[in-house]
Amino acid sequence: MSKDKIVRMEHGAGGEAMQTLIRDVILKNITNRSAGLVGLDDLDDGATINIASNIHDSERSDEIVITTDSHVIKPPFFPDSNIGRLAVSGTVNDLAVMGAAPLALTCAMVVPEGFELDSFEKIIRSMNAAAEEVGVPIIAGDTKTVDRNGLDSIIINTTGIGIAYEVIRDCGLCPGDRIILTGTIGDHGISLLAHREGFDLNTDLVSDVAPLWNMIRSVIPIRTIEGKPAISAMKDPTRGGLAGALNEMAQKSGTGIIIDQKDLPIRGSVSSACEMLGIDPLEVANEGKAIICVKDENAEEVLSIIRKHEYGKDAAIIGEATDSNSGKVLMRTTIGSMRYVDTPTGDLIPRIC
Amino acid sequence: MSKDKIVRMEHGAGGEAMQTLIRDVILKNITNRSAGLVGLDDLDDGATINIASNIHDSERSDEIVITTDSHVIKPPFFPDSNIGRLAVSGTVNDLAVMGAAPLALTCAMVVPEGFELDSFEKIIRSMNAAAEEVGVPIIAGDTKTVDRNGLDSIIINTTGIGIAYEVIRDCGLCPGDRIILTGTIGDHGISLLAHREGFDLNTDLVSDVAPLWNMIRSVIPIRTIEGKPAISAMKDPTRGGLAGALNEMAQKSGTGIIIDQKDLPIRGSVSSACEMLGIDPLEVANEGKAIICVKDENAEEVLSIIRKHEYGKDAAIIGEATDSNSGKVLMRTTIGSMRYVDTPTGDLIPRIC
Ligand SMILES: Nc1ncnc2c1ncn2[C@@H]1O[C@H](COP(=O)(O)OP(=O)(O)OP(=O)(O)O)[C@@H](O)[C@H]1O
Ligand SMILES: Nc1ncnc2c1ncn2[C@@H]1O[C@H](COP(=O)(O)OP(=O)(O)OP(=O)(O)O)[C@@H](O)[C@H]1O
Ligand SMILES: [Mg+2]
Ligand SMILES: [Mg+2]
Ligand SMILES: [Mg+2]
Ligand SMILES: [Mg+2]
Ligand SMILES: [Mg+2]
Ligand SMILES: [Mg+2]
Repeated sequence: MSKDKIVRMEHGAGGEAMQTLIRDVILKNITNRSAGLVGLDDLDDGATINIASNIHDSERSDEIVITTDSHVIKPPFFPDSNIGRLAVSGTVNDLAVMGAAPLALTCAMVVPEGFELDSFEKIIRSMNAAAEEVGVPIIAGDTKTVDRNGLDSIIINTTGIGIAYEVIRDCGLCPGDRIILTGTIGDHGISLLAHREGFDLNTDLVSDVAPLWNMIRSVIPIRTIEGKPAISAMKDPTRGGLAGALNEMAQKSGTGIIIDQKDLPIRGSVSSACEMLGIDPLEVANEGKAIICVKDENAEEVLSIIRKHEYGKDAAIIGEATDSNSGKVLMRTTIGSMRYVDTPTGDLIPRIC
Repeated sequence: MSKDKIVRMEHGAGGEAMQTLIRDVILKNITNRSAGLVGLDDLDDGATINIASNIHDSERSDEIVITTDSHVIKPPFFPDSNIGRLAVSGTVNDLAVMGAAPLALTCAMVVPEGFELDSFEKIIRSMNAAAEEVGVPIIAGDTKTVDRNGLDSIIINTTGIGIAYEVIRDCGLCPGDRIILTGTIGDHGISLLAHREGFDLNTDLVSDVAPLWNMIRSVIPIRTIEGKPAISAMKDPTRGGLAGALNEMAQKSGTGIIIDQKDLPIRGSVSSACEMLGIDPLEVANEGKAIICVKDENAEEVLSIIRKHEYGKDAAIIGEATDSNSGKVLMRTTIGSMRYVDTPTGDLIPRIC
């Protein structure tokens, strides 16, 4: 069978191969792709359902936001966290970067026969702790089992329903907007890889998995002097890393992006592990970070509020949107040269989330 | 390790083992379990989010309904259908039996490396066809891949968001209500088993997988002479079969249920296969059937409307709710004796949905 006719690991890696699969096979075959302002075609962090038209109240502009993620991370327990906290955080974060307060989560688990009940319970407790952090109830779920030959580890889908008074898109970037990253890159991917493969990184690096709603909600109301929203776009740099997310934002917004390598928050341990392994930290998945694009006049205010939060203490302004180089991401390197930062093509680290 | 400390196949089988796991491990550890009228504690087909409190409009009584199911059926293609149609139908049906019009679906796929892209596309097309049947858009999703040693077949989670002007519960049954079953039992489970195990049933039995919203919506508005809803309770008899669903309804409603074996719609091929295999057809999963409990005065009207629909042509009144035998299901057999119909304990047919 030709290589082209089967699903490859890259098809689930958040890079170009996945984007092509989603566009050419999924979008092409689905007739009804929208129920509100943001539909499937937007390929944003989630989609929206218009409330006004469904409850026959044309005054309302708020939207229900919905997002879903299945988690296949292996192993399910990793430094400082586990798949339960990951599943809740990932879904809360996709709602948060759309400007949506989480209203409820669902939890659908597929469990291999033989999975330890103790571990199962620990996972549920971690889901609960993460959900409690942001005050979101878990209201429905599903439990399926698979024979031990059919599946090697637990899979958890979390779907989140939120409400946004003003939806924030990943395509709203304007030239001149400043780009804030809420913390260090690569912690999740590198710590998972080191743990799984048994590398000794000589550090206590742990995953950054965290539910960001409490932090993000604190900056959503901020306005410009003219009364417009300070935040023009948001996205969480998960699979595909910072490189993938910034490229998507630049392409969808029709702006360029320029970032400064010297301003990129990155831990020494991550940087040296990436160098050793030949991995670009910009392409490594994060699970507790957000890219927040803000109007220049609000950048310092937003940054200082974000930094007050536990999950944002390493936040930094890493760059800005430009008129030139539309759809592209450029980086000024520490040695002073400029390089393009491309969308990752394939899979750096499989089963990372 | 003791048998009690690991997940067994029965934990995902829709019977008592699963119910115990959900209650003792999941519910016990989740602090916030409700966002509206129906929460996790109700263990209904889905849960609800109160609109009024979220949009600050206290006049509204409608609720957003949310339900989720992961599908692990093996093989993914089975007589007359596939996992894509199953995933959409299953979720549409859980919304429908709660009285909710589907507003949007999400689709999260976990695909093993090496899965044929042709099959993947066929599955997406079937999802689309089922979604189109009931006019529901698919607005968001997720795509993950797993190495071929980690997973043997595609897994699809569908989460559905609907809106109900009046939520219908599975606990609303009252003594005297009549119980309508919308068609023959066991078609899905037995056709899948025969196909998978290569039994020759000497028939063209196929799965009953179907999205039931168009049929169910036609009876939701029906009222009693006094103006009350004709439908007191609904549920889809999936895993655990008719036996599982009726027991749940009887227990939650605090009524007894008595059904008549002679009135149970069942195909000859299903009945003889069940006899041959020693399986009780009442415990076999259905994927295109609903149990509709109605006030006695409306029973014939509801039945005749259901029968006009393609998916309801074999519908029948199979029994009624009783004051006596609270929480129990009794069956008058064709030979005239009475027997208890219990909640199935474990797994009859694994990976059936
Ligand atoms: N199988 C699918 N069916 C429908 N839409 C999909 C599917 N897979 C992905 N999408 C859509 O593609 C877009 C990108 O999905 P992706 O999973 O990369 O987003 P994300 O959840 O923000 O990232 P991550 O999964 O890394 O957390 C989203 O709009 C999503 O709804
Ligand atoms: N892992 C879980 N976490 C939270 N709630 C769960 C979980 N598994 C099941 N539930 C809840 O338990 C109840 C029963 O679930 P079940 O999956 O049997 O319902 P169903 O979807 O109607 O049936 P089926 O899955 O056979 O179609 C539902 O209320 C569901 O929300
Ligand atoms: Mg995202
Ligand atoms: Mg996500
Ligand atoms: Mg279910
Ligand atoms: Mg159900
Ligand atoms: Mg279901
Ligand atoms: Mg995703």
